[in-house]
Amino acid sequence: MTWDWAISVLGILAGLCTTGSFVPQVVKAWRDGETRAISTRMYVIISVAFVSWLGYGLVIRSWPIVIFNVLNLGLSGVILFLKLRSAPPRRKEA
Amino acid sequence: MTWDWAISVLGILAGLCTTGSFVPQVVKAWRDGETRAISTRMYVIISVAFVSWLGYGLVIRSWPIVIFNVLNLGLSGVILFLKLRSAPPRRKEA
Repeated sequence: MTWDWAISVLGILAGLCTTGSFVPQVVKAWRDGETRAISTRMYVIISVAFVSWLGYGLVIRSWPIVIFNVLNLGLSGVILFLKLRSAPPRRKEA
Repeated sequence: MTWDWAISVLGILAGLCTTGSFVPQVVKAWRDGETRAISTRMYVIISVAFVSWLGYGLVIRSWPIVIFNVLNLGLSGVILFLKLRSAPPRRKEA
């Protein structure tokens, strides 16, 4: 088993854990309908990060980076949608 | 300006946004003391991801990957700590 093969497995494990970690947050926000403690700014900025990683993956033609970040963008987009949907309407200044 | 230089900038931008995205969540959880909607499983799994990325960065000797994932691990560790600290004690079966 070459060393390179083990490094690729470690990278894929890290990618799977990164993407997989958003699934329980999507399920919890969807099931509980409670998103108050979730930071909107976090999910706006991390979506920008995933778009950047997606561009990076396309430019260096790394399909694992592209695939993982399409999934990441989808999952973080759902969390952001659930957060914005449950956010109280902003009071308009008189 | 070589193409490689632009690709590196895109990768660093993506890394900065990924790490930076956790800061508003740390601030919100710390300031509000409210963590109910945050998924414990998400932060356990994403911490495993960051340890894996840290190992990956060390093995391929990529110092940006190492530095970003030490920061990511620190920030997600704080969120996990705040979440576990505010979690109600589990009821022991009689």
